[in-house]
Amino acid sequence: MFSTRLPASLVPTPLSAAVAARRRRHGRLLDLTLSNPTMAGLAYPETLATAFSNVAALRYEPDPRGLRSAREAIARWQGSIGEPVSSDQLVLTASTSEAYSLLFKLLCDPGNRVLVPCPSYPLFEHLAHLDAVAVDRYTFRDAGRWMLDESELRASITPTTRALIVVAPNNPTGHVPTDREWDVFADLCHRHGLALIVDEVFSAYPLTAGVTHVPIPDMPGVLTFRLNGLSKLIGLPQAKLSWILVTGPDDLAQAALDVLDVIADTYLSVATPVQVALPVLLETGAEVRRQILDRVRSNLAHVASRVAGSTIDVRTPDGGWSVVLRVPCVGGPDDLALALLDRDVIVHPGYFYDLPHDGFVVISLLAGEADVREGIDTLCSLPLLQLA
Amino acid sequence: MFSTRLPASLVPTPLSAAVAARRRRHGRLLDLTLSNPTMAGLAYPETLATAFSNVAALRYEPDPRGLRSAREAIARWQGSIGEPVSSDQLVLTASTSEAYSLLFKLLCDPGNRVLVPCPSYPLFEHLAHLDAVAVDRYTFRDAGRWMLDESELRASITPTTRALIVVAPNNPTGHVPTDREWDVFADLCHRHGLALIVDEVFSAYPLTAGVTHVPIPDMPGVLTFRLNGLSKLIGLPQAKLSWILVTGPDDLAQAALDVLDVIADTYLSVATPVQVALPVLLETGAEVRRQILDRVRSNLAHVASRVAGSTIDVRTPDGGWSVVLRVPCVGGPDDLALALLDRDVIVHPGYFYDLPHDGFVVISLLAGEADVREGIDTLCSLPLLQLA
Ligand SMILES: Cc1ncc(COP(=O)(O)O)c(C=O)c1O
Ligand SMILES: Cc1ncc(COP(=O)(O)O)c(C=O)c1O
Repeated sequence: MFSTRLPASLVPTPLSAAVAARRRRHGRLLDLTLSNPTMAGLAYPETLATAFSNVAALRYEPDPRGLRSAREAIARWQGSIGEPVSSDQLVLTASTSEAYSLLFKLLCDPGNRVLVPCPSYPLFEHLAHLDAVAVDRYTFRDAGRWMLDESELRASITPTTRALIVVAPNNPTGHVPTDREWDVFADLCHRHGLALIVDEVFSAYPLTAGVTHVPIPDMPGVLTFRLNGLSKLIGLPQAKLSWILVTGPDDLAQAALDVLDVIADTYLSVATPVQVALPVLLETGAEVRRQILDRVRSNLAHVASRVAGSTIDVRTPDGGWSVVLRVPCVGGPDDLALALLDRDVIVHPGYFYDLPHDGFVVISLLAGEADVREGIDTLCSLPLLQLA
Repeated sequence: MFSTRLPASLVPTPLSAAVAARRRRHGRLLDLTLSNPTMAGLAYPETLATAFSNVAALRYEPDPRGLRSAREAIARWQGSIGEPVSSDQLVLTASTSEAYSLLFKLLCDPGNRVLVPCPSYPLFEHLAHLDAVAVDRYTFRDAGRWMLDESELRASITPTTRALIVVAPNNPTGHVPTDREWDVFADLCHRHGLALIVDEVFSAYPLTAGVTHVPIPDMPGVLTFRLNGLSKLIGLPQAKLSWILVTGPDDLAQAALDVLDVIADTYLSVATPVQVALPVLLETGAEVRRQILDRVRSNLAHVASRVAGSTIDVRTPDGGWSVVLRVPCVGGPDDLALALLDRDVIVHPGYFYDLPHDGFVVISLLAGEADVREGIDTLCSLPLLQLA
């Protein structure tokens, strides 16, 4: 009776079943997959809650792009990081997931294709299939650092490919494309008439000393949709406010905005209270962002120094909330995660993010410093790794 | 570069262009198409704004169906109107539009079909096409009152039809299916394996004396998705909270909920502040609902008495926020609306809702009483109608 847009089987994986079972028996586990900032023991100013109360929100003034006052607050924030934009280039959405959905509807007829990065965040395939869009992967290969497989990317473009998705910084590798890689993306999009979708939700979390924001280069010849939102920028995923920034050739960007208006007008998913609160949220949220940035930097420094000289290698991220470790190859794909689970530590095996499953593990840098210390100690002491 | 999921032309209709032009020149027009309750001069208790401020909302606990506490508040409200449900049968969405989108994804492969009522709300076709779903209409014919064309409905079912949408009360006719019509729906769904989608967003606005809520009959053999939400129930569309109530054969309903979990988990569109506020909103919102119900009932009584004995006929609605008038047939489809616009009154011509365009006009009953009085006076005094 149901569609085939979803995976046929909804059965939990053996690993997630094992995690659930152990949680039931042991209570709190040491969770190094943590991605929910509101559960990370950070101090959230109360203003981030009280800002939602405003009698101005008792008026509903539907605008497919979102309230101008909210878009202007985002434009001011963009200006403050040295990337001025106009509020007219912005379209608000309830989440980045919704932004992807609107863009798939804008760009793709059913059966059309989009290019998604590998390794990456596992949601793209779901999101695309639910909108009747097919995905092809293009790979960043592990060579001590992550390098785009250019020829594979070129070969993956078909006549029905409509868009190229770049996640910068990538989740989970933290890789930011090099200038050369951006040039390849811009060139391919230009030559094949693809739209470029840049997911920059982690751009406020650079992990390189001296950098305050991961910049996205200007690509004036390419219709580009840049995605960002409150989930990561101020650690408030439950506020449900993200946005699409449309750039590129003027007439193309305008045409895209005109059609996006019609699509967004069909759903109008963003609540008014968060739009009215946005100027305060962006201002006050900087406190949360600072705490998260301190946390991920300090955790990364600890992980790097703790594993130095061991059999574990760090794939140093350029930005983001996670780090990929290369561990000496062990048996089955879940063996390492299961061995850690036996010691009450949860990690994501690399294959969860489409990393080759021989010997990658992903560690959250958002988790509390004590948890990361203890978790990495446990990892380093695993007999599995000692023997390798 | 863009998909064909949207109408090729985004050019405004001549009527909407004329309305926009006149608005620019004359300022406020008398708007008898008003559907935004927050612009209707009602008294909204401030609690409906302050309820959004709650430090509990600083925690994000994603649940694909929505916070249990919010679903329990809805279940309590359902119980209070004599239709007890379990919070496990409920899935929260940001809007009814999103609810349709999730259901289309659940039920329909690309190219599958759904049956939508005619006349009705013009959004269904957009919503369906954006999800790569095709629509077929089934008609309620005007026979002084609205009557389902049963044989047309039967003939419209194809092997790829997946769902039947019923809007009860209908927008704009206000028609609620008769017992016989519900039986036909249940029988056809059962025999053809269709899901039934019942849009009951206007169910709290019965226009028949003595009725306090438009009931949806029990159809135990049919997988049914009932849609409702804060937009109409408490006049707060900007809160962005709606829900799907899943009923029907136990195993089928459970299977639908399991798949809906995966789909909703991909988007998680409902903000936490409105979920935390929901118990207060449902309680306090009753004040807004009472005002709206008084307003629509009084406006309907006035319209009916004002046109009595004239060339205009009222198609008495069973519920909802609008009334359809049958007016003596005039020239082009926009002639009547344009003649009223000349007198600063805006109405929706019937074809906007797929009513046959010879001689129907739709009047909002949500507009202020003085506006409705003046607007109907203007309508009754049109030379166009005097001559007919
Ligand atoms: C790369 C990336 N994009 C988007 C998102 C989702 O953001 P949102 O909460 O706005 O849907 C995530 C969440 O982890 C992410 O990792
Ligand atoms: C029949 C019907 N369903 C749904 C909606 C939309 O409700 P929401 O604001 O929840 O998307 C409307 C709005 O007018 C409507 O008339």
